[in-house]
Amino acid sequence: MRIQDSTPKSDGFFMPSEMTNHRCTYMLWPEREDNWRGGAKPAQAVFRQVAETIAKYEPVVLGVNKSQYAHVLELNMPNVRVVEISNDDSWIRDCGATMVVNGNGEMRGVDWKFNAWGGLVNGLYFPWDQDDFVAAKMCAIENVDRYRLSDFVLEGGSIHSDGEGTILTTEECLLDPGRNPDMSKEEIEAILKQYLGAEKVLWLPKGIYMDEDTNGHVDNICQFVAPGKVVLAWEDNEADPQHERSQLAYDYLSQQTDAQGRQIEIVKIHVPNPILITQEESEGVDVVEGTFPRNEGDRLPASYINYYNCNGAVIVPVFNDEHDQAAVDTLQQLFPNKVIEPIYAREILLGGGNIHCITQQVPQA
Amino acid sequence: MRIQDSTPKSDGFFMPSEMTNHRCTYMLWPEREDNWRGGAKPAQAVFRQVAETIAKYEPVVLGVNKSQYAHVLELNMPNVRVVEISNDDSWIRDCGATMVVNGNGEMRGVDWKFNAWGGLVNGLYFPWDQDDFVAAKMCAIENVDRYRLSDFVLEGGSIHSDGEGTILTTEECLLDPGRNPDMSKEEIEAILKQYLGAEKVLWLPKGIYMDEDTNGHVDNICQFVAPGKVVLAWEDNEADPQHERSQLAYDYLSQQTDAQGRQIEIVKIHVPNPILITQEESEGVDVVEGTFPRNEGDRLPASYINYYNCNGAVIVPVFNDEHDQAAVDTLQQLFPNKVIEPIYAREILLGGGNIHCITQQVPQA
Repeated sequence: MRIQDSTPKSDGFFMPSEMTNHRCTYMLWPEREDNWRGGAKPAQAVFRQVAETIAKYEPVVLGVNKSQYAHVLELNMPNVRVVEISNDDSWIRDCGATMVVNGNGEMRGVDWKFNAWGGLVNGLYFPWDQDDFVAAKMCAIENVDRYRLSDFVLEGGSIHSDGEGTILTTEECLLDPGRNPDMSKEEIEAILKQYLGAEKVLWLPKGIYMDEDTNGHVDNICQFVAPGKVVLAWEDNEADPQHERSQLAYDYLSQQTDAQGRQIEIVKIHVPNPILITQEESEGVDVVEGTFPRNEGDRLPASYINYYNCNGAVIVPVFNDEHDQAAVDTLQQLFPNKVIEPIYAREILLGGGNIHCITQQVPQA
Repeated sequence: MRIQDSTPKSDGFFMPSEMTNHRCTYMLWPEREDNWRGGAKPAQAVFRQVAETIAKYEPVVLGVNKSQYAHVLELNMPNVRVVEISNDDSWIRDCGATMVVNGNGEMRGVDWKFNAWGGLVNGLYFPWDQDDFVAAKMCAIENVDRYRLSDFVLEGGSIHSDGEGTILTTEECLLDPGRNPDMSKEEIEAILKQYLGAEKVLWLPKGIYMDEDTNGHVDNICQFVAPGKVVLAWEDNEADPQHERSQLAYDYLSQQTDAQGRQIEIVKIHVPNPILITQEESEGVDVVEGTFPRNEGDRLPASYINYYNCNGAVIVPVFNDEHDQAAVDTLQQLFPNKVIEPIYAREILLGGGNIHCITQQVPQA
């Protein structure tokens, strides 16, 4: 059921941290050939690896278009339920429901309006109608009621919650004219607080360099590792455009306190060296009118911060890069009771995101 | 997950009676214009009424094709969850999963092969591939493992279980050459026992007169109202072709005992007077090559036995016929603690079935 005339906050619900215990993880199966090279087969192999890895720790619900259902069902992956969820592409972090809970063991879903990261202004494809139903379908399968925002565009990858009243986002994304151009920053912040049950929003200036698909989603540059503590994508080389972006975020966070009045502790995780699209990779995409360009030599928005924090593990993208090990080691120190599961994720990155972007948690109510 | 190398019976599972408590009811949303007149809009109104009536008593999960999803979601029906389940038509009794339970609170699904009531021999449409995935999708949503029979065709409407070891079916349907032509009656019976966890199969000779779509499904002529007790569609008029069919069933059942050794008590429920397709109804269907004919003047297989037994109610089809009241009264006497909910169901009948055919229970594990 759609809930009308109230908000999560007015009903006593809030978005828990991704680190709290999950009921399950949702994913979608990639297949659009104008985004994923090689008929999406290389990406499907990695999505499968991500699903099977998460499924070692918690149940996975995998939404699949009708066209690939027979095949994905036949994979018969342990602890992975294959459901039908039509989608325009496979970024369930962004089009899926944001689940909110209260203190009484109840859960509801927030179903933001989705417009493919910018709609007719700078969105990545058209149409996006099926993506916009993904959240409703998630809520139906999970048997939770749903708040639908018909007039407010947001993607799940543009927000983090610490579960204690603080939301982390970026100005670059939420103030981009492709989302909610008629709303002020204050109006947007008010919506976030109402629908995420929060008290304070921290606005990083920018996301990762070259994250032009999403206009700088926060989930590629910064993530809570505890209330009052974040990891931040970092670049030492001052000549690299990423350095200024990381420094801006660092400086901003250093001057902020969270909703509980804590100063923010910042742990840096160095980004990999620049990863460029190869000729073969570029040519593997079926170009159509309106395709977001994936040109040879373009730099990809690679970051270890786009990991996924599931019940017993942290699923972290790696790139066969000299910085991989440091990222894994840092996460292991931050989460000593979790298994760190590195997955070589270049194929996901080629599509425009990474492991966090293709997963969406359903918390325990 | 698909379970391999065992059967429900070998694993200790059986099909409970429809009368036991349900977790929920599944339905599908009708839309094919070559079966449902008027673009399926009249049928949709009645399906909606059925869903909303059941939803007063137990949760309903309504599977909808992508094409109608936006609309059905917007109906926002209380206690009805709208999920995406692609289907070729809306008879979830026949293409849905048959749920089996054990004594330890566990449930699994049986996913029979479906071939649209006869495949290329005498099936109703082609293709039927989406129908054949409905059971798997039900199991995924309900989070139960699944026995898949890739080589055995069965529809849920062709079987009833008393939950105490006895299965009721018809020879007319199960021995029709469109299902499993290379299997003997004994081989078919052995499969039923293995996959329904049963000990004995009672074979009525025939179903209802003119039930040519399904080749005489049992769920239109006879149904358990308790272990050892059935209701039987009856026709007093010996000149009516239905009389002989009812008499054959009566005579057969009178000579049988069930799996527990009980003689079968038979309660007759008189069928409505002959209901014929009108010119307007016939002309409202978009005829295509291969459409099952719905000609003006054809008699419809109308029966009150095609009711649905949900948690607190019996949802019974009525036809504005002089026999309606007797059927309702008999069911009320048989189920004194349930509400009898008559629904004028001519529109469902025009499509080839009735309320039992468009519902599928998920029992409490």
